[in-house]
Amino acid sequence: MKQRLFTPGPTPLPEDVKLSQAREIIHHRTNQFKQVFQEVEEGLKYVFQTNNDVFLFTSSGTGAMEATVANLLSPEDEVLVISGGKFGERWTEIIKAFGGKVTLLDNEWGKGVDPLLVEKKISQNPEIKAVFTQLVETSTGVAYDIETLGKILEGTPAVLVVDAISGLCAQPLHTDKWRVDAVIGGSQKALMIPPGLAFVAISEKAWKLVENSTSPKYYWDFRKARNALAKFQTPYTPAVSLICALRDSLRLLKKEGLEKVVKRHAELAQATREAILAMGLKIFGENPSNVVTSVALPPQIDEKKLRKLMQARFGVQVAGGQDSLAGKIIRIAHLGWMDASDIIVVISALEMALLELGYSVELGKGLRAAEEVFGEFRGV
Amino acid sequence: MKQRLFTPGPTPLPEDVKLSQAREIIHHRTNQFKQVFQEVEEGLKYVFQTNNDVFLFTSSGTGAMEATVANLLSPEDEVLVISGGKFGERWTEIIKAFGGKVTLLDNEWGKGVDPLLVEKKISQNPEIKAVFTQLVETSTGVAYDIETLGKILEGTPAVLVVDAISGLCAQPLHTDKWRVDAVIGGSQKALMIPPGLAFVAISEKAWKLVENSTSPKYYWDFRKARNALAKFQTPYTPAVSLICALRDSLRLLKKEGLEKVVKRHAELAQATREAILAMGLKIFGENPSNVVTSVALPPQIDEKKLRKLMQARFGVQVAGGQDSLAGKIIRIAHLGWMDASDIIVVISALEMALLELGYSVELGKGLRAAEEVFGEFRGV
Repeated sequence: MKQRLFTPGPTPLPEDVKLSQAREIIHHRTNQFKQVFQEVEEGLKYVFQTNNDVFLFTSSGTGAMEATVANLLSPEDEVLVISGGKFGERWTEIIKAFGGKVTLLDNEWGKGVDPLLVEKKISQNPEIKAVFTQLVETSTGVAYDIETLGKILEGTPAVLVVDAISGLCAQPLHTDKWRVDAVIGGSQKALMIPPGLAFVAISEKAWKLVENSTSPKYYWDFRKARNALAKFQTPYTPAVSLICALRDSLRLLKKEGLEKVVKRHAELAQATREAILAMGLKIFGENPSNVVTSVALPPQIDEKKLRKLMQARFGVQVAGGQDSLAGKIIRIAHLGWMDASDIIVVISALEMALLELGYSVELGKGLRAAEEVFGEFRGV
Repeated sequence: MKQRLFTPGPTPLPEDVKLSQAREIIHHRTNQFKQVFQEVEEGLKYVFQTNNDVFLFTSSGTGAMEATVANLLSPEDEVLVISGGKFGERWTEIIKAFGGKVTLLDNEWGKGVDPLLVEKKISQNPEIKAVFTQLVETSTGVAYDIETLGKILEGTPAVLVVDAISGLCAQPLHTDKWRVDAVIGGSQKALMIPPGLAFVAISEKAWKLVENSTSPKYYWDFRKARNALAKFQTPYTPAVSLICALRDSLRLLKKEGLEKVVKRHAELAQATREAILAMGLKIFGENPSNVVTSVALPPQIDEKKLRKLMQARFGVQVAGGQDSLAGKIIRIAHLGWMDASDIIVVISALEMALLELGYSVELGKGLRAAEEVFGEFRGV
């Protein structure tokens, strides 16, 4: 059966990216590889909107989160974590594993960030060295206002660390303009390549913390990464086939243009939301992102049954809720190699599956709402 | 120009492996993935020759080395490192980064391990918790006698940790029979897939250290890896396309049979050595491995020029010496997806390039010596 991924990573792959990986491997200590890596580094700076170095790690996104903690912090360092979901919690877990002292701004899952509260916490505790949060909290679909956080931290000693693993290229992000000191990205999201690579963009303000950090690290050491990057190399043998695929996906993104890529994601997200509302369902969470739409399920609908049915009947894979949201929401990703027709497919599968499970919905109603959004964008 | 890799990783890829990566990505939290991962885990146990859990990490081999240190040791722990090259030195660097106290058995590069010396060090210091070494020291090509080390450590409190990144499937290795407590493997060697995955097989004796380790870790945490593995999962989104490729390469290895795979490597290595000797050159180092042959260059031959010429004229890429061996040796890998004809190709390129650089060699002499080895194995 034809399978279609609407999960917030891995996401579908463009043909160029798939075929890129089928090419013969090249050796990483060659000029041939250096040329690829130089193009990748330039492309990463473009999508991160930064002139900072962007370090590449062969790892999951979580690895680059750990790398950032291990390089910026020393044991006993005070930090603020703004958390409102599974990935906010992950920051706290990693920082505690490395002996950091966490002040937690623990938002209810689905709620946005109150900038005033952040400002207060920072002014109350001048020892805070870093503020950790997400661009998009993938477990809820909520987007955070990073621009405002950047303004709050400007002029303070604290650096701003943003996990943009799911948000990069889908949600607006201006690393330099917004003064974000550390931005983490991952490969299997809007970058449209398989999982296995992760990225960290580091500002000069953050680099001062790197120079003073005493946390143990070797594989993740930013100093080694920076020395290697100066020669368009990585300290250890990287995932060469994925880097070549990334070169090709960055070309596609550059060709489309970052602004248009983000706008496409915004349009797909809006159409999804309008369709959901037209079906009489509710969107879970404030300030929904361009990455993933969380749909609050009516109490009579069994989430597992719904997802199984969508998959079994239509090959459509959406994500469920995680941890405290398990069984309560489904998450529809509109992320990466996606267009209007993909949204039509997932909404159609959802309409039909919900009807079959006894939810009263007029077939075609969600689809029509989505079409109206796409028509509006296209001036129909 | 047709390119041919004779480097000790990355190594050439079988067609099945290349095409495997071109397939559409699958989601990692599905039964479809679990089936792949279960088959991979069984295949890894087979090639490691172990019933221990084999944890898979999305990282370079060095990441799995760090993972092993971070999980087995606590700060101030005493260890013995048996080092005789760049990768032995890497053990020391990682362990020191994590606060371990290293007793160093610092062998001259190219020399083997003296088991009596190891026995002495262990009996002198009963505080030693672990002994770290290599199956094959890739920077010199020397194979270490792991079987004897296993016997020495049996019945002592110390665990035996072996970096088998380059040696796995090429050099004999019986993890359980030889009582090796931690074995590290990498993907881009005889496993015949691109770089990006690394593995650690952990014994119950080593697991006791894991339970008591206080070193900071999150991404590398073996406890999380073990919990996930019980459900044929990884704690974080792994490099799915590489895992699917690994499933296919493990099928090839299983079909050929591990014993035959190792024997093939032994034959290719022997033919390479005989060819080198027939050309009047010397093998660098004692106890040369099945992985890579280090050729001591005559003083009049410029290593960089030689490698450049082989690459420019014949598309043949061999490795140079590292660190203290830079300029003094070339390293010819006969690793992974390789057969007799590949050895013929690299020896021919070497003969012709050496002659062009003014080294007196009778063309065809090395080739003939290699053919005689292959003929002998085939009963000609």
